[in-house]
Amino acid sequence: MTAVSTNLTALAQQLRVDSVRTSSAAGSGHPSSALSAADLMAVLMTRYWRYNFDHPDNPGNDHLIFSKGHASSLLYAMFKAAGAITDEQMMTYRQMGSPFQGHPTPALPWVDVATGSLGQGLPIAVGVAIAGKYLDDLPYRVWVLCGDSEFAEGSIAEGMDKASYYKLGNLIAILDMNRLGQRGQTEYGWDGDEYAARARAFGWHPIEVDGHDFDDIERGYQLAIQHQEQHEQPVLIVARTVKGKGISWMENENGWHGKPVPKDKFDATIAELGGETNLTFDIPEAPTVVSDITGGTTGRWEPPTYDLGSSVATRKAYGDGLKAVGGLRSDVVALDAEVSNSTMSEIFKEAYPDRFFEMFIAEQQMVAAAVGIGVRGYVPFASTFGAFMSRAYDFIRMAAISQANIKLCGSHAGISIGEDGPSQMALEDIAMMRAVHGSVVLYPSDANQTAELVRQMADHEGIAYMRTTRAATPVIYEANEEFTIGGSKVARQSDDDKVTVVGAGITLHEALKAADELARDGVNIRVIDLYSVKPVDYDTVHQALMATNGRLIVVEDHWPQGGIASAILECFATHTSAGQDRGIDFRMTHLAPSEMPGSGTPDQLMDWAGISARHIVEAVRGLLD
Amino acid sequence: MTAVSTNLTALAQQLRVDSVRTSSAAGSGHPSSALSAADLMAVLMTRYWRYNFDHPDNPGNDHLIFSKGHASSLLYAMFKAAGAITDEQMMTYRQMGSPFQGHPTPALPWVDVATGSLGQGLPIAVGVAIAGKYLDDLPYRVWVLCGDSEFAEGSIAEGMDKASYYKLGNLIAILDMNRLGQRGQTEYGWDGDEYAARARAFGWHPIEVDGHDFDDIERGYQLAIQHQEQHEQPVLIVARTVKGKGISWMENENGWHGKPVPKDKFDATIAELGGETNLTFDIPEAPTVVSDITGGTTGRWEPPTYDLGSSVATRKAYGDGLKAVGGLRSDVVALDAEVSNSTMSEIFKEAYPDRFFEMFIAEQQMVAAAVGIGVRGYVPFASTFGAFMSRAYDFIRMAAISQANIKLCGSHAGISIGEDGPSQMALEDIAMMRAVHGSVVLYPSDANQTAELVRQMADHEGIAYMRTTRAATPVIYEANEEFTIGGSKVARQSDDDKVTVVGAGITLHEALKAADELARDGVNIRVIDLYSVKPVDYDTVHQALMATNGRLIVVEDHWPQGGIASAILECFATHTSAGQDRGIDFRMTHLAPSEMPGSGTPDQLMDWAGISARHIVEAVRGLLD
Repeated sequence: MTAVSTNLTALAQQLRVDSVRTSSAAGSGHPSSALSAADLMAVLMTRYWRYNFDHPDNPGNDHLIFSKGHASSLLYAMFKAAGAITDEQMMTYRQMGSPFQGHPTPALPWVDVATGSLGQGLPIAVGVAIAGKYLDDLPYRVWVLCGDSEFAEGSIAEGMDKASYYKLGNLIAILDMNRLGQRGQTEYGWDGDEYAARARAFGWHPIEVDGHDFDDIERGYQLAIQHQEQHEQPVLIVARTVKGKGISWMENENGWHGKPVPKDKFDATIAELGGETNLTFDIPEAPTVVSDITGGTTGRWEPPTYDLGSSVATRKAYGDGLKAVGGLRSDVVALDAEVSNSTMSEIFKEAYPDRFFEMFIAEQQMVAAAVGIGVRGYVPFASTFGAFMSRAYDFIRMAAISQANIKLCGSHAGISIGEDGPSQMALEDIAMMRAVHGSVVLYPSDANQTAELVRQMADHEGIAYMRTTRAATPVIYEANEEFTIGGSKVARQSDDDKVTVVGAGITLHEALKAADELARDGVNIRVIDLYSVKPVDYDTVHQALMATNGRLIVVEDHWPQGGIASAILECFATHTSAGQDRGIDFRMTHLAPSEMPGSGTPDQLMDWAGISARHIVEAVRGLLD
Repeated sequence: MTAVSTNLTALAQQLRVDSVRTSSAAGSGHPSSALSAADLMAVLMTRYWRYNFDHPDNPGNDHLIFSKGHASSLLYAMFKAAGAITDEQMMTYRQMGSPFQGHPTPALPWVDVATGSLGQGLPIAVGVAIAGKYLDDLPYRVWVLCGDSEFAEGSIAEGMDKASYYKLGNLIAILDMNRLGQRGQTEYGWDGDEYAARARAFGWHPIEVDGHDFDDIERGYQLAIQHQEQHEQPVLIVARTVKGKGISWMENENGWHGKPVPKDKFDATIAELGGETNLTFDIPEAPTVVSDITGGTTGRWEPPTYDLGSSVATRKAYGDGLKAVGGLRSDVVALDAEVSNSTMSEIFKEAYPDRFFEMFIAEQQMVAAAVGIGVRGYVPFASTFGAFMSRAYDFIRMAAISQANIKLCGSHAGISIGEDGPSQMALEDIAMMRAVHGSVVLYPSDANQTAELVRQMADHEGIAYMRTTRAATPVIYEANEEFTIGGSKVARQSDDDKVTVVGAGITLHEALKAADELARDGVNIRVIDLYSVKPVDYDTVHQALMATNGRLIVVEDHWPQGGIASAILECFATHTSAGQDRGIDFRMTHLAPSEMPGSGTPDQLMDWAGISARHIVEAVRGLLD
């Protein structure tokens, strides 16, 4: 490497050359989208982006999120120019096993979150900025590089809205307005005034600049910072740029999105850009500060307790449990999408108002903010109706790639909510959440169980989802019973069980009623409370199947696809299954709603859907015929 | 019923009384949210809403969508006031089996689409208005009643954006700005200027009115229509209203969202509102027109054909097939989220530009527009990367409640896309789409198969999803082979098969390679192409299991949860399963990615994930040990 340089042209051209080199070596990538932003990033990294590459966890570091994740080659070129990585490392771009992936992920220590699903970086940055302003109380800035195409995503509007609502004067978004999307001109082309007008309407301060004029870029950043010194307002720098800038035949030409420079043009292109260099540049120093965040246990665990036989909704126990976890751990934060009096997260809010963030009805932003707040080491719990978690599915999917440590709670699950009808019924949330990489899916049936599992969600590193029930249901476990992620409870058993019935949440209570009724007729069944749907305690199910000659009933308040029954059956491929045990005569009945429900009382709907105690009794008798 | 009346006060008060009566009788509902909009709807229905209740399918009818679906009691009260239903029918509100559900659904003939997940009615209305302007060429208007809380949803921004982009001068949204959300004040309270400024920034014409002053409401509607006679621009009427209007103790009070009038206040409340009436009112006549839409076959089926042994990506065949279906059926329409050159819907676009709608990167709006266009009888196909379908999951879920006839295509599915990395890989789409009520899920492996299945998707009434592959794969079927929704193909078989291997899409080709390799060693396997994942052809799988002594390998490019293996295993509950057949020794191996992938070549990643031919060979040998 040569000596530290501060020549902006040299830096910008090196970023361009490296973006071309990496993508051409990989045979794929988005160099044209990197080139448009190279000048913007050259000025940012040498003058404004305060970052300590040796200590990526330094709480004083600024955060830089590439919302346009497809410009990854530019980001990695910046890492090289900052001296953080070698040219050789960078050149592993997009190769098997390389952390320099096609789109940035936290496989690299300097990347906060995964991007690549457009419209997510900005809303997540809002979360990081909320943490900086309201939790960390630290002066770091959050910078976001956005593409123009992604401004069509509603999630960008949600992020802009919440950024001004929370007066995020520590958030600066840079819009790389290069006019061209993947398949032609974007919706607004080079109409910077259009973007500026929208930003202004959303309470932002827009600044329009020429994204290839270093002086104008410099002016833009300076104005942004000056503005934020006086106003608690997010700033959008609308930078007019040229896609493919610097390569004469690629500039502003359609058809070059996501395409590397062809081999036959490679040498001439590199020459036009000024040739390969290996300069390094100083990044402004970030203040080294010590974080106030103390993870893990800082207080006492004073869980709510509920009396056996009383009736308490698990959503109420979620709220109580969350408040208790808030007392136990100062790093726990809660968010809600304007339904905190239904999810009962309001109980936490009342106890810890400084750690509660109202996201109004913007579920995507709620999950994005949770991911962003998690970047700073907090443990966010985000809640809404289970049905509306589906609104944020792409964000949850991406959170798994971000290795995010977020907790989600979906209330009012299933047809058992009753009169409000199908739009409010989560009947696909278990399928959806199980298919998130590394997720935990919990579905408690009892208030004491719920509170304990909320605590374990906080301790568990990763994405954990809890499904709660609207109605009050009987408390069946003592306050001090043990429940674990990956566990289950045998809720009813005898030496003479004829059938295994698996339920969870609301259906467990139906299974217990069925067990009582059958017992009166001298028929014993084993009832398993499968409160941990993922990971699933198949061993206990299998033991029960062995004891009941392979007779299995799964009863769930969820569509038949992808839910609790599937969680069990999928184990047939990895565990010794009932079918694989000689002498066992496996027979199964699956009780789950199969038709689209309407309104009705909870009892009517559960009976209509075939998941009430009466149907379980019938199914048991059917399996014994 | 009494004689037709035009007294607005009488109408508005009847709407209020009926909203209170129905919700109190049901013991649930949202009367306070109905009361704020009663005056707005009273003026609308008697002066501007052109509708023929006897012919809800009359193409000349205006459309009215309650985006704030929780005000359903108001909508049903309007139906009564229009003479469409009796008081007795209305009073079945929220009862089991009643079409007058907690939130509106097309269980009623006068309801276009289900609402109740906030932020969806407006984007869907954009689709109806697009149909009116660009497909029907009819002068109907689309009216949408919106709540203020739902303006926090990004999908509202997407809808507003597309409404102005498509110059929808036939769309009028009415914002019932009643200040209070479910749990307190909304984000912007009564700041009508804020909503108006945002609407203006999005290219709408805002008109602010007092939502309880009939003259001002009248002025608002008149101005809206006058404006649209001269400008092709959507209008937002920002109506300042009072939640619970008309009930002195409920007006503008927090804590009354979603709560009926208590029994002890009921009589006095009805009296205050003027008492129960059964007036009917004339609705402006809608012109009776004949639609140009001719459903079904209008042209010739001239499918693309591909030669056996050539290599064609199924996404390419999707584009070709869609164009062919466009020739066959004039009611087929296509939409894309700015990736038509990847999904290959651009082939349709080039052939039928008038039937193609670019939604830019706004997947929620894309699905919403499809639902809205479907309301008018067209058959919309909407495509994006399979990964990004997750962005629209709540809209797809709700589309099922809307009984929508929409077709979705998710391209670039699975880790086999290679270098772009996990953000672009759909690895949960099968789980997600299978858990949509009544859905069809197709995953073709071959170009000829793809084209035929695209045709069948068009013929199928309901939600159908097709998953396509990025890479070119071998053509293995003749152009005239038969494929059906719910079918499968036995792609390889002999009299001496040892193991059943089920694959679909990209993994089918790996299974065939494995079969070739094993055959060279004298081991025959049966290979099933399970191109219809839902409904699934379990009978064929079962027959194969009988022939292979219960040995099953499922290989799929999808997370292990909720995918193809689950689709098969779930059948154990409804079909005779392998485990239930005496003498069959069921053993299963499931090959699916289990760790988070990074970048790599398709071959490297498939091998790394354990779903390549080599792993299938190993798995076969493992099952035979």
